[in-house]
Amino acid sequence: MAIVRQPTRAGVRDAAAKIAAILPSSPLFVAPVQGMPVAFKAESLQPVGAFKLRGAWHRLTALDEAQRTRGVVAFSSGNHAQGVAWAAKRLDMPATIVMPADAPRVKRDATLALGAEVVSYDRMTEDRTVIAARLAEARGATLVPSFDDPWIIEGQGSVGAESARQMELSGLGGPMHVVVPCGGGGLAAGIALALPEARITVVEPEGWDDMRRSLEASWIEPVGPNPPPTACDALQTMRVSPLTFEVLARRDAKGVAVSEAEVRAAQRWAAVKLRLVVEPGGAVALAALLAGKVAAEPGMLVILSGGNVDVEAYAKAIAPETAEAPAFPALSDSGA
Amino acid sequence: MAIVRQPTRAGVRDAAAKIAAILPSSPLFVAPVQGMPVAFKAESLQPVGAFKLRGAWHRLTALDEAQRTRGVVAFSSGNHAQGVAWAAKRLDMPATIVMPADAPRVKRDATLALGAEVVSYDRMTEDRTVIAARLAEARGATLVPSFDDPWIIEGQGSVGAESARQMELSGLGGPMHVVVPCGGGGLAAGIALALPEARITVVEPEGWDDMRRSLEASWIEPVGPNPPPTACDALQTMRVSPLTFEVLARRDAKGVAVSEAEVRAAQRWAAVKLRLVVEPGGAVALAALLAGKVAAEPGMLVILSGGNVDVEAYAKAIAPETAEAPAFPALSDSGA
Repeated sequence: MAIVRQPTRAGVRDAAAKIAAILPSSPLFVAPVQGMPVAFKAESLQPVGAFKLRGAWHRLTALDEAQRTRGVVAFSSGNHAQGVAWAAKRLDMPATIVMPADAPRVKRDATLALGAEVVSYDRMTEDRTVIAARLAEARGATLVPSFDDPWIIEGQGSVGAESARQMELSGLGGPMHVVVPCGGGGLAAGIALALPEARITVVEPEGWDDMRRSLEASWIEPVGPNPPPTACDALQTMRVSPLTFEVLARRDAKGVAVSEAEVRAAQRWAAVKLRLVVEPGGAVALAALLAGKVAAEPGMLVILSGGNVDVEAYAKAIAPETAEAPAFPALSDSGA
Repeated sequence: MAIVRQPTRAGVRDAAAKIAAILPSSPLFVAPVQGMPVAFKAESLQPVGAFKLRGAWHRLTALDEAQRTRGVVAFSSGNHAQGVAWAAKRLDMPATIVMPADAPRVKRDATLALGAEVVSYDRMTEDRTVIAARLAEARGATLVPSFDDPWIIEGQGSVGAESARQMELSGLGGPMHVVVPCGGGGLAAGIALALPEARITVVEPEGWDDMRRSLEASWIEPVGPNPPPTACDALQTMRVSPLTFEVLARRDAKGVAVSEAEVRAAQRWAAVKLRLVVEPGGAVALAALLAGKVAAEPGMLVILSGGNVDVEAYAKAIAPETAEAPAFPALSDSGA
């Protein structure tokens, strides 16, 4: 897809206004960590269980009438699929989601329940980008990327604008330091645009910390060969986008990597202290804070980006560590 | 404690206004059950993880200056303890909580962290009501019951007033039928006062369904001898109060009992569908709905009253039923 423009702060403001018109703010909770009040933005409590409906809404509402009639195509096995399906349903547009044939049944069912058509492909023998591009061309539909798109980035950035308002209402002052989960970097880049004064720390699972390495190297480095298994399916992105990377690099964002055990500890803490179910990929920023890889400080905002879990894996993850190790899903394809 | 007055709807309105001035509304979520949109009020997301801070706030703010200086005494091993401690801390009043020596460490620590003094007693040899009454008399402090008190009932009723406003804003219309967990009945009676047009169904664990039996018999019947073990520690009340019973009986409220397995299924559903951690006692109303013991209908409001869990027991409860049966706490004392 041709990139027609860079994402902007004005675009984030526009997205935030559009989203505020249809969705109540997701809750912001304040809890002490290391003796410091820290703000937690619970995007896990969105109707589709993740922030992804924000970018999808901003992108789909930017389509003209003719484009709306022809619909949208996206590839994703997870939260982006549901975000696009949710936005398309509200706009009464056809949506087609390309999903691996072995995607978790619960995610497939949730996408179907939102009225989207699901096209399956074989992860081993077919390339979903080719399938999606062909579908889009055949139908004249618009392809909606999960992060490599200025509208998607601006839409996700509305999390930053909304959190800033909530923190000020809570008497915490504006966000000074945002700690945010990172797959392709759409959420982190959008928040960076929304909050020009804040420091940004992106958090990834160990072995999948390509944004961290890219920021250190000052050019985009992909995930290495044979990355380790991770429970953070939402963050398994093989390569970030120039759009997201440039925003974060210009802002001198830092990267941190967390272990699988640190992620499980964060999920457990969120369950007990915040009474929230947070998925592994949604818990990495909290994991970095609790592990002491990021120090708590005044004006800290931690994003809990998603809460869609398989209940069996979740029960194992939050059980004390002496229990059987959680079963991790096999390496899935990137980008959603 | 001498009952000086009946709880009233005007009192609930007053309580709701006082509580709105210090606490944001707890989130209300809408999710389909049996094809019907049902509203879920997440009191589990309150700062102390349960609705109990509402009644405590209404009660403590009704004390005069001299009473405030002498402080409050409560007995509870759970959520009421934290509610009273939270309210006392905000009002800069001394609070003493009488807790069994074998209370879960996490609840004791949470109460201490809120600045309360904790007095331990031996569950087998001592009577906490006597200890609390003696402490209150010695200090000139006010005893704060967990449900047998008009202010407590009115304060808890603010859940109903708040939910009604949120449901109307969501386009669902006002609550027509409220399904609510019941221990001593303070929450259910308060909501009944707040919503004079709504039908009320109270839900209790099997064997602890004394409010159900009392409503059927038209007089108060206590829990029978040797009640079964239950994971719903928040609902282990041996006898309801005339104050709560009268309100519910006058409103022709109905009672339903749920099994331990139905409670676990509800906790699992809340984790996956709502991404919320709900404690066993907080999940009984949802359990009744999911088990088909209450039919979904337009204008239905289900209260999720608390989310304070021991993470190990919680992990076992939400794991698929083939797993080891959850360990239930021993029969605890009543009323909190």
